[in-house]
Amino acid sequence: MTAAAAQRPWGRVEFEERLRAVAEERYHDRHPFNIRMNEGRLSPAELRRWIINRFYYQRNIPVKDALITAKFDSPDLRRMWMRRIEDHDGREVGEGGIERWLRLGEAAGLDRAVLLSDTDVLPGVRLAVDGYVNFCRLRSPIEAVAASLTELSAPDLMRRRIEAFERHYPWIDAEGLVYFRARVRQGRRDSGETLPLVLSMARNRAEQEQAVAALAFKCEVLWSLLDAVDLAEQEIRW
Amino acid sequence: MTAAAAQRPWGRVEFEERLRAVAEERYHDRHPFNIRMNEGRLSPAELRRWIINRFYYQRNIPVKDALITAKFDSPDLRRMWMRRIEDHDGREVGEGGIERWLRLGEAAGLDRAVLLSDTDVLPGVRLAVDGYVNFCRLRSPIEAVAASLTELSAPDLMRRRIEAFERHYPWIDAEGLVYFRARVRQGRRDSGETLPLVLSMARNRAEQEQAVAALAFKCEVLWSLLDAVDLAEQEIRW
Repeated sequence: MTAAAAQRPWGRVEFEERLRAVAEERYHDRHPFNIRMNEGRLSPAELRRWIINRFYYQRNIPVKDALITAKFDSPDLRRMWMRRIEDHDGREVGEGGIERWLRLGEAAGLDRAVLLSDTDVLPGVRLAVDGYVNFCRLRSPIEAVAASLTELSAPDLMRRRIEAFERHYPWIDAEGLVYFRARVRQGRRDSGETLPLVLSMARNRAEQEQAVAALAFKCEVLWSLLDAVDLAEQEIRW
Repeated sequence: MTAAAAQRPWGRVEFEERLRAVAEERYHDRHPFNIRMNEGRLSPAELRRWIINRFYYQRNIPVKDALITAKFDSPDLRRMWMRRIEDHDGREVGEGGIERWLRLGEAAGLDRAVLLSDTDVLPGVRLAVDGYVNFCRLRSPIEAVAASLTELSAPDLMRRRIEAFERHYPWIDAEGLVYFRARVRQGRRDSGETLPLVLSMARNRAEQEQAVAALAFKCEVLWSLLDAVDLAEQEIRW
């Protein structure tokens, strides 16, 4: 391939395929910790550690989404993106994804004050999540938006997770799983909006490559989060 | 007064009085250009120049509000602040303050494409508005929030402006004034939320002083915007 061809923009189909390939191949559903979760091999202590640490990610989602909202100069795009903040914060007190995650914690025997205190969040989890928020703060609009495309793979993961929890972790009340159920629908709707947006935002090959790299980075964030949770458990076990 | 006393926090009443004093004494309703506007002494060309340049401020309000939203770690505060973004962007296409300002422009004979293009925005206006957005991006939460307290004085300015437009500029259709009418109500509601928030956010004298300085800075932003619009007209006239 010549240098000129290398710079030619991918066609829409190829660009979408490349994004989908990253979202599929590098998604954290393949992480050993997630596989053990789905196979029912996590102890209650391991599951609680994951719930506490993943909450640090959950509570930062609206922050990164507000930072992305601030990158748009169009009311239509801001309105679209703000709906994600609402999904997590709720339209009213007692609603939203953050509240639902707190209820997951309670269903697993964790007081919400423990989750809200942040004190048990592992350093590696903090670095991964803060790194993601800063990526959305500092990078270009297309990079910040493309990083959200892990939602292409999220609905499948959520469906498998619900099945695994119902089957292997019956000590967690089914009421605690409402977060996962809501995300199946929200993830489908979000990716249905974000994918066309990323495809249309990229004006040249360089921006297409930045979008693919941003999505790969986001996969690494989620993977690193599970690495940190997994390793901490090993340290306890060995 | 001793150094120790200088560091003692102001009581709630004194702190509020100091904020209100800045919002009153340094607000841009005292700017010569605003006084000429209220006295009916602006030409159609001058009024249109102001509408075009002030639109650059209007369209950036939701951006700075999204940046402030990203500074809060509480769903309640984010939810409260996001309502301001909605006020300007609208819940639906064709609603919101930005749309209403475009209609003000149309009522004054300006095509909305002219306002949306940004090409006639004066350098001094750009510097003032971008400076305000970056202030909200980079400063502490209390400073970013306190800068919004010019809304303490906004409803009075809006009411006087509506009277002045109806009386002195009948060539602007009354339908064009809906932006100002909506802001009377929104400004009262917003300042009713923001003032208690600022009063409670300040944990010591240093933060109280930062809040007062932030509000003074915001007054300077609005004043500089009118300086730029006023000076440009002088250059044309002389």
